[in-house]
Amino acid sequence: MVSIKDVAKDAGVSPQTVSNCINNPAIVKPATRKLVETSIARLNYTPNASARRLRTQRSNTIGIGIAPVSYSQVYDRFLHALVTEADANGIRVILYKTDSQQDEIRQFDALRSRGDVDSFVLTDTTHDDPRLAWLHEHHQPFVLFGRPWGARIMNDPATPWVDVDGHYGIAEMTQHLILHGRKHIGFIGWPGISGTGMDRYQGWRSSMLDARMANADELDQLYEEAKNDILSGQTACIELLDRRPDIDAIVCVSDTLAIGAATVLPNDTDIIITGFDDTVSARSMGLSSIAQPLIESARHIVRITQEQLAGSAPASAGGGPHRPGAAPHASTDDQHVLLKPTLVIR
Amino acid sequence: MVSIKDVAKDAGVSPQTVSNCINNPAIVKPATRKLVETSIARLNYTPNASARRLRTQRSNTIGIGIAPVSYSQVYDRFLHALVTEADANGIRVILYKTDSQQDEIRQFDALRSRGDVDSFVLTDTTHDDPRLAWLHEHHQPFVLFGRPWGARIMNDPATPWVDVDGHYGIAEMTQHLILHGRKHIGFIGWPGISGTGMDRYQGWRSSMLDARMANADELDQLYEEAKNDILSGQTACIELLDRRPDIDAIVCVSDTLAIGAATVLPNDTDIIITGFDDTVSARSMGLSSIAQPLIESARHIVRITQEQLAGSAPASAGGGPHRPGAAPHASTDDQHVLLKPTLVIR
Repeated sequence: MVSIKDVAKDAGVSPQTVSNCINNPAIVKPATRKLVETSIARLNYTPNASARRLRTQRSNTIGIGIAPVSYSQVYDRFLHALVTEADANGIRVILYKTDSQQDEIRQFDALRSRGDVDSFVLTDTTHDDPRLAWLHEHHQPFVLFGRPWGARIMNDPATPWVDVDGHYGIAEMTQHLILHGRKHIGFIGWPGISGTGMDRYQGWRSSMLDARMANADELDQLYEEAKNDILSGQTACIELLDRRPDIDAIVCVSDTLAIGAATVLPNDTDIIITGFDDTVSARSMGLSSIAQPLIESARHIVRITQEQLAGSAPASAGGGPHRPGAAPHASTDDQHVLLKPTLVIR
Repeated sequence: MVSIKDVAKDAGVSPQTVSNCINNPAIVKPATRKLVETSIARLNYTPNASARRLRTQRSNTIGIGIAPVSYSQVYDRFLHALVTEADANGIRVILYKTDSQQDEIRQFDALRSRGDVDSFVLTDTTHDDPRLAWLHEHHQPFVLFGRPWGARIMNDPATPWVDVDGHYGIAEMTQHLILHGRKHIGFIGWPGISGTGMDRYQGWRSSMLDARMANADELDQLYEEAKNDILSGQTACIELLDRRPDIDAIVCVSDTLAIGAATVLPNDTDIIITGFDDTVSARSMGLSSIAQPLIESARHIVRITQEQLAGSAPASAGGGPHRPGAAPHASTDDQHVLLKPTLVIR
């Protein structure tokens, strides 16, 4: 068993400096930290989590924000999954308000300075998310639920994330429809360039092109944008069918839009509408949908957080060794986990 | 200014005993506590909140649970309002899972024994809620968001609550429809005897009877029950109109059911459908609804919690003095606040 003294000897520093690097890296000079982190990686040093907690008196708490209007239909289910997994691992969850990304940075600062929180979980990640810059600058541990859209390096060891593969889910759904004889499959997506929305759109687009179901011009005709409410889904569906009366299926980027689309179809329609998120209401209407693995997502987020709390996942030293069985659907490494959603066909 | 020594002298006990009664009542004999509480009430003793916090090293934290499936369409908006008000008052919010009422009691016990939480906010209150018995027995401060349905004494000083008057909201909506010429107003409610659901149902029923729009037999014909999903709303609406084709308005207990009902009406219908909760989707469809004052609710919950933290609202000594302006819509007293929702007519 490698001890903190072995690391200190290997790096040519004092044990206290090694401890500082793990528990309070901000107070250590970058060059020294680099030395110690290299030794930690080389010796594969993993401190005992419980002992560390006793010693460091960490608050053992993660913080997560809630927005005035949830971006996700399943945000409350995700929160439940997160607190369930945290609870099973002796970690508390502090909930704070986040009215904007700048507001969330103020919360980071306040919670961090009071020692209330060890790590943060960020949701609703955007292109060039200013929250990431702040967290990196302050050496504050965090995990993203969502990807760092637009980042130069998606799998930067300093930016751990867990996400659900929307591209995969929508592609699977589109392919399912193609394989069941649908020829003219429309898509209702969100406006703007949200990473999540673009990712799901590309899942439909690439499946259609790969199967030569449409060329690029036709894809434009088969595509409508809608804000995420029922009326917008209704309007988009009517527009699509006006333009292309031959449409025989519509893949929607969300259950809300799918419900809108489904409610303007005549009763005897043969057109299939599919959604995303497998909500109670979509289920009640018999719509096929795509279920996010929220519990598994939460499990990975809590695992990464625990490794941070234990100091075994230094932000700039790369992910730990891959543990077989721990992440059956993980795509890349222990610190960057892309989970596959599940088709729910009705 | 009354001091802790004045209370001790009045009650014939030591200042430490008074302090214990306020900060750690479980360790004081009931008879002694009663004496001290009587003196506190008589002398109107209100300790300084900040000083007390410094002295008592309270965690200054409230706990609130989240269920696997939210009972409310606006639970996330309520959580946001709660953490916003808490933040403005220097109070942290810990979120924990609650898979059942018994599970929530286990959480109470764990959070309380670790000193993580000073007070709890309970939602989704039910008849003979076992959580209340546990909290009372353990002298654990809490505030209900919702009423203690079925309680012998609704305004028990030991059971502070804040709620939104669903009876009033549905009655106002029904009366609005009557005053705008609707003669045959149906109601789609929830099955079972949930306090919230019964309260809203009675708002419709009493308004119809008062205005002599229907007798009791007719009311049964104008009433349908539905689970809270869109399909059930659709089915209930079709049933109602089959039975009573003369229906010219349907008041629904929730926006979800209203959306269901609205989506099965023909496009040229004159029938008005109304919902409850003023959600984005109901708004998008132009449905009238009833908005809960969530921010005001959160404000009262945090105020009552602060009074608990400050020790100025001993559970068995009744509410504090009513402060004019603090609770414009308060119905009863400072510890039992019934807020009026707002009609949103479209």
